[in-house]
Amino acid sequence: MADLLLRNIRPMGAAPADILIRGGRIKEIGSGLNAPGVITEDGAGAIAIPGLVEAHTHLDKTTWGMSWYRGRKGGTLRDLIDNEREARIPLGLDVHRQSMRHAVALIASGTSHIRSHVDVDTDHRLTLLEGKLKTREALRGLVDIQIVAFPQSGLVVRPGTYELLDAALSDGADIVGGLDPSSMDRDPKGSLDAVFALAEKHGKPVDIHLHEPGELGAFTMELILERTAALGMQGKVGVSHAFHLAMVHPDRTTELLARIAELDVSIYSTGHPSAAIPSLKAMRAAGVHVGIGCDGIRDTWGPWGQPDMLHRARVVGMKNGLRRDDELEMLLDTASGAGAASIGVHGHALEQGAAADITLVAGETLAHAVVLEDPRPLVIKGGVVVARSGIAVIQAP
Amino acid sequence: MADLLLRNIRPMGAAPADILIRGGRIKEIGSGLNAPGVITEDGAGAIAIPGLVEAHTHLDKTTWGMSWYRGRKGGTLRDLIDNEREARIPLGLDVHRQSMRHAVALIASGTSHIRSHVDVDTDHRLTLLEGKLKTREALRGLVDIQIVAFPQSGLVVRPGTYELLDAALSDGADIVGGLDPSSMDRDPKGSLDAVFALAEKHGKPVDIHLHEPGELGAFTMELILERTAALGMQGKVGVSHAFHLAMVHPDRTTELLARIAELDVSIYSTGHPSAAIPSLKAMRAAGVHVGIGCDGIRDTWGPWGQPDMLHRARVVGMKNGLRRDDELEMLLDTASGAGAASIGVHGHALEQGAAADITLVAGETLAHAVVLEDPRPLVIKGGVVVARSGIAVIQAP
Repeated sequence: MADLLLRNIRPMGAAPADILIRGGRIKEIGSGLNAPGVITEDGAGAIAIPGLVEAHTHLDKTTWGMSWYRGRKGGTLRDLIDNEREARIPLGLDVHRQSMRHAVALIASGTSHIRSHVDVDTDHRLTLLEGKLKTREALRGLVDIQIVAFPQSGLVVRPGTYELLDAALSDGADIVGGLDPSSMDRDPKGSLDAVFALAEKHGKPVDIHLHEPGELGAFTMELILERTAALGMQGKVGVSHAFHLAMVHPDRTTELLARIAELDVSIYSTGHPSAAIPSLKAMRAAGVHVGIGCDGIRDTWGPWGQPDMLHRARVVGMKNGLRRDDELEMLLDTASGAGAASIGVHGHALEQGAAADITLVAGETLAHAVVLEDPRPLVIKGGVVVARSGIAVIQAP
Repeated sequence: MADLLLRNIRPMGAAPADILIRGGRIKEIGSGLNAPGVITEDGAGAIAIPGLVEAHTHLDKTTWGMSWYRGRKGGTLRDLIDNEREARIPLGLDVHRQSMRHAVALIASGTSHIRSHVDVDTDHRLTLLEGKLKTREALRGLVDIQIVAFPQSGLVVRPGTYELLDAALSDGADIVGGLDPSSMDRDPKGSLDAVFALAEKHGKPVDIHLHEPGELGAFTMELILERTAALGMQGKVGVSHAFHLAMVHPDRTTELLARIAELDVSIYSTGHPSAAIPSLKAMRAAGVHVGIGCDGIRDTWGPWGQPDMLHRARVVGMKNGLRRDDELEMLLDTASGAGAASIGVHGHALEQGAAADITLVAGETLAHAVVLEDPRPLVIKGGVVVARSGIAVIQAP
């Protein structure tokens, strides 16, 4: 396990200090530390934060590093899903290669933890999972990757998917995924019962994409909360997007947020620029664990995005109308320490005993760091330097 | 006037060609052009587009290149305005220096035309205008700057402002500005009569910030349209933001857009990430001249933004939910050729006889060029190279 003396950094923007890492964990934070024989890195006064956390993405989908894809379509969610499922093979979207490109770019931009959904469907079966498991293995020690087995094309509506999800969870997927139990699966009870049955069987957490609007989404959220309580799954359930929280009556949102916080259900927001999104400030004020994610990056769905959590933090911050320094600090926390807690990684902080996952960022203050587009000077994972000046120590294929 | 032979570029993403520029204008576009004795630039196969157009910004407000500003506030529009007016002097916000920094960065990123509002108020009187006129002069030939005399702190509600606007228009401001005649000035008739009286007196166009929501904004828009028709000001009136077009009943929006198009009133959108915004596709389909703008960049109001019209195009595109290649091409046109028409600059195109304002962009196709964050390889204004690899030929103070 790695030892490292990181000198002359500003922990969370505070006065310059050194961080001594022993065995991949933070041993001491202080001034003028000495550790004879230990490799030393000079942080040149840069701000240090806990590694950035990507709480919702799809590493198997990106066209990053490939030729420009001209076949994007408009239409309904179902149209976009079908276009993707049919385009993968003709396009040559190799999951291992593409997820490596995406993940290595995230390492280079200072990400220490990634939660990624992988499509499981009756066309591709477990082939996409296999490519992503290979990526997780190839990047072990450089970034932690959680894999959600995700029924992108539907679960109840696509017979055979349940068995594939079951197999995916046996084969190494960490989390049971779900998708719009009402609007997509047409059977909220059946869909959620299936998802939670898989979670119980495998003893694994749940993460459900919930795009459903207004009161429909609120109803489905109630069903999720009921199952979380009944099965004692507090702290093991996450809901992605949750647009409905921005669409129902404000009193209803307040009630739902209180219950979401009480049951320790996490919400993952991508700050979707063209949809209604739940208020980051309201969720945090209610005590909800919130993470942010880039979602898909330049995939068959859409052309947008960068594999950089500070880029996504800016999208989320602009969408939420954040302006003040304290708001930007809260945003940065959501992209690092608090974001980690939302995906079940606790104690992700610059403090003694914590894993030495540390990212140096440009800027005078934490707030300034959020808006600057500069590359990250240094990225450390478990005490090992994994990227320098925006370039990862490992190359993607 | 400049002559230049620009070789090996792809006009609007088409097959490689050369562009011969004589006297600052496009003389010929074709293959294998020769012009002995004329300076030659090799475009290396990059896509060429007409220079980018910044249709709505505030060059006098940015803190770009200064220390991080920690004093941003929340609150109402009025709170933000007051915070800015009171912060300018203590902050040392020198208008000439800051507007130079902002404008030079826009040149570096390929902008050929800028419409910038300058605050005119009874505290600062015409001092901000003076700084900006100096910038316009310093950058003559490198970028065209239109200056709007803008009553940021109100017109009718702030006695003395009318006379200052009158003086600003005599002193070199090009356009009469206005701000929320109802919600800010509390007297829509009085405010608009004053704005249009100044326009008539000076024979200059009008550009009104209209943030007013819903039916209030629609009412104010009607008053603007009535005056446009009555005074024969077709083609000389622009409205910025126009959030109301996204807030009233869709049928009402359709009616308003038809009338806006008929009277040749332009709409300028910043794709405001946290507000309702008029649909770019709906406005273009209705035949409205639309331009896009970055609005303020890292100013006392907010921390966001980059002085780069492709960055803003991405913000506008994401906000509008654009995905397909044809949609991205429409977006790029709104940031260049069509955007120019919206601020009264017609014939901004890669065609014989047009001004040789040409920007080379990275990417395989026009759509690809919109999403890439790469610097612009070459920027040409009036046949002269004004930036190369993202760096302008002139340095800002």
